[in-house]
Amino acid sequence: MKRIMLIVLDGLGDRPNKELGGKTALQAAFRPNLNFLASNGTNGLMSPVSHGLKVGSDTSHLSLIGYDPREFYSGRGPFEAMGLGMDVRPGDVAFRANFGTRENGIITDRRAGRIRDGNSELCSSINMEIDGTRFFVKEGVEHRAALVIRGSGLSDKITDSDPHITGKPAQEIMALDRSAEHTAHVLNQFLERSREILDSSDVNRRREERGEPRGNELLIRGAGMAPVLPPFGEKYGMKGACVVGIPMISGICQLVGMDVIKHPGATGTVDTDYSGKIRTAVKALKDHDFVLVNIKATDIAGHDGDPILKRDVLEKTDRAFGPLRDILGDTVIAITGDHSTPCSIKEHSGDSVPITFVTDGIRKDGVRFYDEISALKGELRITSNDTMNYLLGLSDRAEKYGA
Amino acid sequence: MKRIMLIVLDGLGDRPNKELGGKTALQAAFRPNLNFLASNGTNGLMSPVSHGLKVGSDTSHLSLIGYDPREFYSGRGPFEAMGLGMDVRPGDVAFRANFGTRENGIITDRRAGRIRDGNSELCSSINMEIDGTRFFVKEGVEHRAALVIRGSGLSDKITDSDPHITGKPAQEIMALDRSAEHTAHVLNQFLERSREILDSSDVNRRREERGEPRGNELLIRGAGMAPVLPPFGEKYGMKGACVVGIPMISGICQLVGMDVIKHPGATGTVDTDYSGKIRTAVKALKDHDFVLVNIKATDIAGHDGDPILKRDVLEKTDRAFGPLRDILGDTVIAITGDHSTPCSIKEHSGDSVPITFVTDGIRKDGVRFYDEISALKGELRITSNDTMNYLLGLSDRAEKYGA
Repeated sequence: MKRIMLIVLDGLGDRPNKELGGKTALQAAFRPNLNFLASNGTNGLMSPVSHGLKVGSDTSHLSLIGYDPREFYSGRGPFEAMGLGMDVRPGDVAFRANFGTRENGIITDRRAGRIRDGNSELCSSINMEIDGTRFFVKEGVEHRAALVIRGSGLSDKITDSDPHITGKPAQEIMALDRSAEHTAHVLNQFLERSREILDSSDVNRRREERGEPRGNELLIRGAGMAPVLPPFGEKYGMKGACVVGIPMISGICQLVGMDVIKHPGATGTVDTDYSGKIRTAVKALKDHDFVLVNIKATDIAGHDGDPILKRDVLEKTDRAFGPLRDILGDTVIAITGDHSTPCSIKEHSGDSVPITFVTDGIRKDGVRFYDEISALKGELRITSNDTMNYLLGLSDRAEKYGA
Repeated sequence: MKRIMLIVLDGLGDRPNKELGGKTALQAAFRPNLNFLASNGTNGLMSPVSHGLKVGSDTSHLSLIGYDPREFYSGRGPFEAMGLGMDVRPGDVAFRANFGTRENGIITDRRAGRIRDGNSELCSSINMEIDGTRFFVKEGVEHRAALVIRGSGLSDKITDSDPHITGKPAQEIMALDRSAEHTAHVLNQFLERSREILDSSDVNRRREERGEPRGNELLIRGAGMAPVLPPFGEKYGMKGACVVGIPMISGICQLVGMDVIKHPGATGTVDTDYSGKIRTAVKALKDHDFVLVNIKATDIAGHDGDPILKRDVLEKTDRAFGPLRDILGDTVIAITGDHSTPCSIKEHSGDSVPITFVTDGIRKDGVRFYDEISALKGELRITSNDTMNYLLGLSDRAEKYGA
């Protein structure tokens, strides 16, 4: 049995860029290591989750490690909360949240003037416990936050407090079925107490003095129950680890019981220590059967709409991949993306991403370059739901389906 | 956000034709516009509904516009009725029907000698209302007809009156569950009254005088409830229209709430005004986000088993496509078929059809010609259920699945 390394270059896929003479960032990059790996492997194009579908990193990573999001994904709440680095456990209910402005009982600004300063203070002021249910609030970008509630007998079958338009009061949380009545009840209590605390907070007093809208109402929406995912170790009989900078992805890995390995130079930006990350991952293979690596910088460059940066990030990534050439004897490596983030549109798209499976002894399909167009000559037209089947099969770990 | 045009060349796919030196009709056609569009797009092969499946135009079009027929298709009855231009509404129950011959209570001919003359008269004579349920009958080709019933509390959980063989009486309609008892009851009443009316009709008196079998029994089968389809506008947030000659397809478009746009030169035959249809569709893009076009003539040539005609139809179609070159800046165009109708077999087959997605800025996959064989070098191996995902993604209209 071989070990497995699944390398996800976040937002990898691209479209033609004028700045690069009509090439994608991958096509334009000097990438000898990626080309070496592609030349020695089986290649093709992979559609994250489903062909043509525009997906997020959460649904895509779930799918890549073999948890079909159409079965296991329970809405954005828990994943957004994980994305903020919050501890989310099976049975927790999580929400996306905004700080809004309430005046005389009416929501006058759903973003509290895009409040920035003091959010962390506001959030920690309303962490509390009511009748055995604990409430955790953490700040996100600008007015955004997340709420996680933990206790027994919770349900996500409830309505939002966010009225979704201004000029209305915050809505009372309603239970959508009887099993959710307790949850609605404690949430309404929590929101009531939060209002008192936020109204009298120093942060809001200072904002009022400066003539800025107060962040005195936590508007919550999109309740989702943290999914109960079968443990990775039991599902595959493998000890798994991840070397991942994004809290949302390491949150998913934690949920399935993988070890989350930090490496010192990780910044989650385009200046991250690419080589350190790969070295850490290779090292992790010594006491793990499966290591997931996510490199976020490609996605950042895509969202920035900067094809030169995306190319440069890919060149740095490629340089870091040198050590991968040396482990093909006892390791199956997959290199792919979790979705495309074309520089030309600056956001996720439904375009496919290239995928390479490589290990000694694999069928080579004659593809010589690692990019979206060269991959067309390869064997594969798959979805991310197929990835674990290939990895298990190529590492001699698959159980036979049938006799 | 871009606008979307989905062009369906009915029965497009073909197999090699001896008459064309072993080429498919598409390969043999002079098709500079189709080749231009393919050269600037992402290409491949699409299997209607499911790989290798032989499908009808109804199931395929439902799938193409994002209503998976495995969820929404409710049997041929409603779609055959729409195909005859009948008004079919959600909650209606529709049947395929034949005029048969009944003598002394026994069905002696299930097709009444393939009766042609007077069918329209026979049909209108048995349109009626019983206890608040209305019965609409309309003639089809030869002995064929369709029955639509409309009223409250109807069900399609009933048996056929058609005995499916001669030498037996027409069967009493039976309810398959209790909810269908009312439907069975009113249908048996309808059939009883129809028998009296048809027995004494002038059409049948004349047929008897000429020694021809009478069409005095409406044999009904294949009850289907018209599906309740989520409105297209709500599902996608787009205003949709169709420019379609075939009643069955415009019926589907009407069911989902699209505007049905007629154009003057439409004949639904091989002599139709191809350019007028495309010009009408381009014009419709001015006040619609999504326009579906169906060109039927390719299917007719396939059913006729005439590869020369199919090639000529494709050449005419190609000439009409000139204006499409000018709208690629703000429109995503897909060109495909709803199924193959190979000239060599004169009917629908499970063969795939080529598909091209094209718009400015899309990834080009290097395919230079629009045909079944050149498409092999393209990226896509999809089913028609994926089509809307690609169109929404490429037009920046997709909602992200996940965070």
